[in-house]
Amino acid sequence: MPAIDPARLLADLRALRAIGAQGRGVVRPAFSPADMAARRWLKGRFEEAGLEAAIDGVGNVLGRSPRAGKALLLGSHSDTQPTGGWLDGALGVIYALEVARALAAEEATRALPVDVVSFQDEEARFVGCLGSRSLTGALAPELEQGARDKDGVALAEALSKAGLAGVPRARLDPARHCGFLEAHIEQGPSLEDAGRRIGVVTGIVGLRGIRFVFRGQQNHAGTTMMARRRDAASALYELAHRINAEFPRVAAERSVWTMGRLRVEPNAASIVPGYAELDLQFRDAAEAPLEAFERVAAGIVAEMNARGGVRIEAEPARAPIPPTRMDPALRAHLERAAERHAPGKWQPMPSGAFHDAGIVSACLPAAMLFIPSIGGISHDFAEDSRDEDIVLGCRALADAAASILAEANARR
Amino acid sequence: MPAIDPARLLADLRALRAIGAQGRGVVRPAFSPADMAARRWLKGRFEEAGLEAAIDGVGNVLGRSPRAGKALLLGSHSDTQPTGGWLDGALGVIYALEVARALAAEEATRALPVDVVSFQDEEARFVGCLGSRSLTGALAPELEQGARDKDGVALAEALSKAGLAGVPRARLDPARHCGFLEAHIEQGPSLEDAGRRIGVVTGIVGLRGIRFVFRGQQNHAGTTMMARRRDAASALYELAHRINAEFPRVAAERSVWTMGRLRVEPNAASIVPGYAELDLQFRDAAEAPLEAFERVAAGIVAEMNARGGVRIEAEPARAPIPPTRMDPALRAHLERAAERHAPGKWQPMPSGAFHDAGIVSACLPAAMLFIPSIGGISHDFAEDSRDEDIVLGCRALADAAASILAEANARR
Repeated sequence: MPAIDPARLLADLRALRAIGAQGRGVVRPAFSPADMAARRWLKGRFEEAGLEAAIDGVGNVLGRSPRAGKALLLGSHSDTQPTGGWLDGALGVIYALEVARALAAEEATRALPVDVVSFQDEEARFVGCLGSRSLTGALAPELEQGARDKDGVALAEALSKAGLAGVPRARLDPARHCGFLEAHIEQGPSLEDAGRRIGVVTGIVGLRGIRFVFRGQQNHAGTTMMARRRDAASALYELAHRINAEFPRVAAERSVWTMGRLRVEPNAASIVPGYAELDLQFRDAAEAPLEAFERVAAGIVAEMNARGGVRIEAEPARAPIPPTRMDPALRAHLERAAERHAPGKWQPMPSGAFHDAGIVSACLPAAMLFIPSIGGISHDFAEDSRDEDIVLGCRALADAAASILAEANARR
Repeated sequence: MPAIDPARLLADLRALRAIGAQGRGVVRPAFSPADMAARRWLKGRFEEAGLEAAIDGVGNVLGRSPRAGKALLLGSHSDTQPTGGWLDGALGVIYALEVARALAAEEATRALPVDVVSFQDEEARFVGCLGSRSLTGALAPELEQGARDKDGVALAEALSKAGLAGVPRARLDPARHCGFLEAHIEQGPSLEDAGRRIGVVTGIVGLRGIRFVFRGQQNHAGTTMMARRRDAASALYELAHRINAEFPRVAAERSVWTMGRLRVEPNAASIVPGYAELDLQFRDAAEAPLEAFERVAAGIVAEMNARGGVRIEAEPARAPIPPTRMDPALRAHLERAAERHAPGKWQPMPSGAFHDAGIVSACLPAAMLFIPSIGGISHDFAEDSRDEDIVLGCRALADAAASILAEANARR
């Protein structure tokens, strides 16, 4: 069993936290000066761990083992949300570094090649999972062209400012690797609620989005009688409430749906709104509930449109993400390691959030390990996990990595 | 019967339209350079009509008749919405000027005193009905202090820029006047729909507002299970939809209610909203339906709060405006004049919009006359009325003014 160094692990996590720190949180969005400083610091740490390290043309930090044989790729992302927590993707990157160091320090595991990666822009400042898409050949030119952040900054400009214009982009050689493991905080309360300390991810939920557009007639709120109104906002309230009322009928146990973004025009108390928009997003680990949600929403829209008045249009709000299953063989290694370090205190679970592992799984066997989030909070300055859970998760990951590598290289 | 001059009436309306014209509309918000230019032009026209004219310290343009006896005050406002129509209050101001001229031109009516007014800021850039409030002593200091427009400009600054700092503010002497008449476009489609050419206003509807505040818990839209959510937006959708479903049960024939302004935070598709606001505004010509609406809304809120989850607070969104009844004696004069000029083609009706007459009615008998709005459109560049309706309405107003004044001065 490889021995990780808890003090070194926590010290590196805290050192990375300091780059872009704001209060208890971290502000390190992709390509910001803080993000690039963190990437340069990571490159140095990867080199100190004996890896051949480089920052590629989209900002991925790659640390490549000089050892021969089938390598295991470990990592996550070090960019953050605009007001992010300190762990999120950083946890999985420092875990990867610590596992590489721990395996290199032991006689029994020294020969096993561990590659380490910090992907770029998982948090979608420009393109969600930009780095893992680029590394795996899944960055379609149309995704990249014209990509801008919410302030209108172009991706090309951000790359140039970060000194990455013309820098080669790395591509994964699938023949080199036996798989990819990503560790992450859960970002939800399930582990904490169940009193569990490790989650082994069964799959990443799929996600679809619909944007509803409501076209009515703007009018004076005092002089326009109710019967004559074509009130875009009232149509929005009805559709949203009926979706909340009817979706449970077709939902699976872990289905979720959210209507968190809307717009009403002109958004004034004395004016009957003539235009509105509503975004609906829904997720499940299987396609069937996603299909059912689309059918139910379309049925309500058709019924409301048949009534006349406000005209409702529904269009896809974003490219759908299909549900992804994690690799069963890698999962089995993670489950054995979890049972060894947290007997009876781990559980299989789907991931409700998307991760780079969802991209990498298209070309490599991939699996994920979760540790508990205190209060289920993430994407917030208050995000945190207990030191004991951080250390325990890394021990399980190191064990799983060693056994996966031993098995992959014994077969050769 | 006094004879108005249709060509002069329409020419003056068009001359006023040209001050601040943009396309078919007019941009002449209170105290803007265009608004003050219009007021100086009006002062000149009032003087040419033989009135003693002045612009007072809040921008009201007052034209005072030099004749002895009980005077009738006529007028409306010449400020516009930020993107206003050309008629709105301007119609009533030019009607007043034309009636004063028409009465002065006839032997039989020459001695009857007609005072003319263009009130300031009816459209609430700073304080709704600022001018009529000031003239009637209803401008409470707390309304004025700290008043700012939506861009943060202070009322005191706007007054100073308009050259009104230190200029005396006029106050109505109720003993001078026998009443106030205001003509206005309907701003709704009722007259046009009914094929009527004149409306005699029975009362101005009262208005109340409630602001609902929803406090939930912001969360990740992928990792937070439905049962654990406290989704502020979903509570808003439910409350708004139930208000639309339950209000008709207690509504009067002309009750209206509107939920045209809302706010959801952080307003992102992938985040369960933790905070939301919704403004409800409701109007009726009687207090009873307004009371009933408040009871129904409070009942839904209490029921939803009893369930737990999102906490809903309801607070008054603005000072309530009580319903106002127009003076029955003045209405009778307007009705006789309407029947004379539009036999069978006029109707009594409430005003769904608020007007200066609602302020003036607190200290003088007041009544209003409406002419049809094409398509019911107002507060929009497309606002318009037919020339024949404009002329007919002025004829009826002149007749009513003459008979009111004749009666008031015969009694003396």
